[in-house]
Amino acid sequence: MSERHQFKYLGDIRQNLWEIIFGTSTRQGKKFDVILLWVILSSIMIVMLESVEELNIRFGDVFTLLEWVFTIFFTIEYFLRLIVVRKPLKYALSFYGIIDFLAVVPTYLTIFFVGGSYLVVIRVVRFFRVFRILKLTRQMREAQVLMTALRDSRNKIFVFLAGVTAAAMVLGTLMYMLEGGENGFTSIPRSIYWAIVTITTVGYGDIAPQTILGQAFAAVLMLMGYAIIAVPTGIVTASMSNAGMRKGRNGKTISCKSCKSDGHGIDATFCKDCGESL
Amino acid sequence: MSERHQFKYLGDIRQNLWEIIFGTSTRQGKKFDVILLWVILSSIMIVMLESVEELNIRFGDVFTLLEWVFTIFFTIEYFLRLIVVRKPLKYALSFYGIIDFLAVVPTYLTIFFVGGSYLVVIRVVRFFRVFRILKLTRQMREAQVLMTALRDSRNKIFVFLAGVTAAAMVLGTLMYMLEGGENGFTSIPRSIYWAIVTITTVGYGDIAPQTILGQAFAAVLMLMGYAIIAVPTGIVTASMSNAGMRKGRNGKTISCKSCKSDGHGIDATFCKDCGESL
Amino acid sequence: MSERHQFKYLGDIRQNLWEIIFGTSTRQGKKFDVILLWVILSSIMIVMLESVEELNIRFGDVFTLLEWVFTIFFTIEYFLRLIVVRKPLKYALSFYGIIDFLAVVPTYLTIFFVGGSYLVVIRVVRFFRVFRILKLTRQMREAQVLMTALRDSRNKIFVFLAGVTAAAMVLGTLMYMLEGGENGFTSIPRSIYWAIVTITTVGYGDIAPQTILGQAFAAVLMLMGYAIIAVPTGIVTASMSNAGMRKGRNGKTISCKSCKSDGHGIDATFCKDCGESL
Amino acid sequence: MSERHQFKYLGDIRQNLWEIIFGTSTRQGKKFDVILLWVILSSIMIVMLESVEELNIRFGDVFTLLEWVFTIFFTIEYFLRLIVVRKPLKYALSFYGIIDFLAVVPTYLTIFFVGGSYLVVIRVVRFFRVFRILKLTRQMREAQVLMTALRDSRNKIFVFLAGVTAAAMVLGTLMYMLEGGENGFTSIPRSIYWAIVTITTVGYGDIAPQTILGQAFAAVLMLMGYAIIAVPTGIVTASMSNAGMRKGRNGKTISCKSCKSDGHGIDATFCKDCGESL
Repeated sequence: MSERHQFKYLGDIRQNLWEIIFGTSTRQGKKFDVILLWVILSSIMIVMLESVEELNIRFGDVFTLLEWVFTIFFTIEYFLRLIVVRKPLKYALSFYGIIDFLAVVPTYLTIFFVGGSYLVVIRVVRFFRVFRILKLTRQMREAQVLMTALRDSRNKIFVFLAGVTAAAMVLGTLMYMLEGGENGFTSIPRSIYWAIVTITTVGYGDIAPQTILGQAFAAVLMLMGYAIIAVPTGIVTASMSNAGMRKGRNGKTISCKSCKSDGHGIDATFCKDCGESL
Repeated sequence: MSERHQFKYLGDIRQNLWEIIFGTSTRQGKKFDVILLWVILSSIMIVMLESVEELNIRFGDVFTLLEWVFTIFFTIEYFLRLIVVRKPLKYALSFYGIIDFLAVVPTYLTIFFVGGSYLVVIRVVRFFRVFRILKLTRQMREAQVLMTALRDSRNKIFVFLAGVTAAAMVLGTLMYMLEGGENGFTSIPRSIYWAIVTITTVGYGDIAPQTILGQAFAAVLMLMGYAIIAVPTGIVTASMSNAGMRKGRNGKTISCKSCKSDGHGIDATFCKDCGESL
Repeated sequence: MSERHQFKYLGDIRQNLWEIIFGTSTRQGKKFDVILLWVILSSIMIVMLESVEELNIRFGDVFTLLEWVFTIFFTIEYFLRLIVVRKPLKYALSFYGIIDFLAVVPTYLTIFFVGGSYLVVIRVVRFFRVFRILKLTRQMREAQVLMTALRDSRNKIFVFLAGVTAAAMVLGTLMYMLEGGENGFTSIPRSIYWAIVTITTVGYGDIAPQTILGQAFAAVLMLMGYAIIAVPTGIVTASMSNAGMRKGRNGKTISCKSCKSDGHGIDATFCKDCGESL
Repeated sequence: MSERHQFKYLGDIRQNLWEIIFGTSTRQGKKFDVILLWVILSSIMIVMLESVEELNIRFGDVFTLLEWVFTIFFTIEYFLRLIVVRKPLKYALSFYGIIDFLAVVPTYLTIFFVGGSYLVVIRVVRFFRVFRILKLTRQMREAQVLMTALRDSRNKIFVFLAGVTAAAMVLGTLMYMLEGGENGFTSIPRSIYWAIVTITTVGYGDIAPQTILGQAFAAVLMLMGYAIIAVPTGIVTASMSNAGMRKGRNGKTISCKSCKSDGHGIDATFCKDCGESL
């Protein structure tokens, strides 16, 4: 075989591999993706079960073995992706490229220090490819609407959380002075932690006010938290309603035939951008 | 009596029984349904009381007896329904047909193994017939609006819960590494359970972070959960508002025949845009 | 003094008393109401403090004395109201009439059996007169908007809570079978109580799943509760938005000059009832 | 140097200092603000760490020293602000003037009584200047929208919280009578505290019903709280939606000069109703 033919032959293999590993339209590509999903799921399960002591004592060796098998599989897969892809650097620095890399590293870290293996839980992020593979485009779109609504409200929510945190700092300190260490409020950071637990209505109860004064103060804090939980909800809801309205009530907007601009409400008679009648 | 007459006579009985058991318009039909409701209520009460140990010790025999009486009653009722209905197979495979069957089976299972009887709690689902019987059509319509809003938001809520679960997996694992077994985070599944308890603001407090670092991490998680609880609320609210707008207050809007403008309330007599009578 | 004059004189006294006790426009009427408020407040405080054991041991006699003083004051006030008002029966059966009566009774009950005195807490309801007295009409209107929104959503919320309760019954029973008595789920009613504590995200933690299976099941329940808390919020929000829209965006609607009908949105050009231009 | 020149020279120094301390546009002004932020942050950190006993035992002296250094810095800064500003009294009585004063006082209080130093946490409020300094005007505007929405709903939320508190008082007292002191409900104030903990879905679990009757009652309370949490959310959301509609996405709408129709988004170029350019 001439060198040229050999090159072409290698190119074909590379193209085939690309379709299997990255593609989702061919039969083999789908099969590969489904197998990958099951391997990811299994590898996460193994790490979880490994952390349960009674199981680790009995099956520890099996778990370690399986983990290495999975890791070697993922390592090979990662290098294949690097070889097969047209722009390896771009892939390596892309979101999924970094996730794929981080999904491999933790097990190797265990050679140097114990406990690193738990980080393989990052593999759960690889799961989101399931949407792409199973053609769950509808769900993808819904996710995008959610993300848009959250992104729109990002600044408001950030300001809100900053305010809540500041309030928790002041109120936690006051509570520390009211209750003191003998009632569990042993330090200001711990009291702030309690204030956040209370305002967010989580309420573990590991620290709880014991004095009448402290309980009265805590009751005010709870009612406050109960009222202000409305704020992020209001933000997101308003943002979602607006997004919905921008799209029209039935999920569609009128687009202008003359200037192609989109997003007119269904009650609009004239294009808001070019003035043509819709 | 000729065979034909006998058949007709049997047919009449069957028709009468159908009206009593399935019908709700005749007096006897209503009476049967009300009795049935009380029997269902009593049978559920019996099973609940039976599970309270001190009561079971004292009245265990009475409970077992009553349970068998109720079960035999339901068995007869189930077979009567099968005989009386026109298409027995269609009924047996319908939603309420399956519920009626499942409501009978558990007690018979107790012959073979202990504890099965608790499954009779499924009888509570039979309760929803109360709406049909008591002509609570208004409530039925409200329930339908709720179901529609939930169905509309189904995909968004599914995506949201998938995201929350994935976040809980990653954050729970991190917490397991931060706190470790001596502080109650004995395994990754248990830590994920803790993360869900925290994000959803349930906060049992059976597992709670003890170290300063863990508490700081938990505080971030709580604030996150506090902010993202807004997301499902926003989804459902937007969906309900849209449903309300689409349907008007009583479920439908009038559109103007003359200017084609839509969205008039059903109480409107004249078009609000062109003044023509609707 | 002739009998007629005496009658007139008594009538004047009655009229004066009516203005003091029921009226809010005269100086004396206001003074009486403010004094009444402080007496109510004090009487509630006394009952609360009485329930604190260490205070009751020390000041028990003072508390009992004060309670009787307050009760006699309220009794005299109640009879004065009955005498002074024009239609005593109508007052006695009105909402505030019944509250005024219930505010008096509990202390007399303590003669016959211990503990009844705590019921005087019902006096807190008398407090809502503060709105009327202090001319807090604005707050009254806000309260009315809230009540309207809640009344509009009453049916939906009732159906929702019925659904949640039925779900809690089925899920609580399943949890009872999963966890069993040795983990705190000692009976089905107790398990249903746990299910409600979990779904509503209260999460006391007095009962909490211990097995991995139970915790997984509980996690599903929590996520469910986290998602469905959106439903009542969506109901009330949609109802409030609608109420707001009905009233127009700035809190006012356009009323028709020709047929006097009210409630047109601010974007309406023609009256929806008579077709006249607005 | 003549007296006049000296005055002018002092005036220049004062002007320069004003620009450094109050200004944000010059380089030195920005540098000063950034340094100030770090000093505030450090001083808060010190107080927090001081409250952690094990750290206080080891580094107590260092903490006290640093606290005094910071306090002297803030004292000098406060007096400089007073000297430099044009209207010292107006500054001293302004919001930030009072905060600046309160940020200094607590440490001096520790001379007279122990524990006062924790009040320096009020310095956290000074942090909000960060928005001004870092030109976070966008965030400032978002915060303003939130504040407006909250202010609009202030009355409604106040009425709502008053209603919840009254309900908690009545329900807490009933629970005190149902459960009694042996189950943790030792007094009415404590029972009211429990009722608030439950209605707000915080659920510490430090006090929890033990009897079947008490648990049933608590379950009703929880479901009630679960339903009425919708109310503040509805209030704020409706208020935010309205605010959003009134103001458009960036806070204002354009109204058409030709047909007077209102509510065009700020991105609109032509009127959607009559087609005229805006």
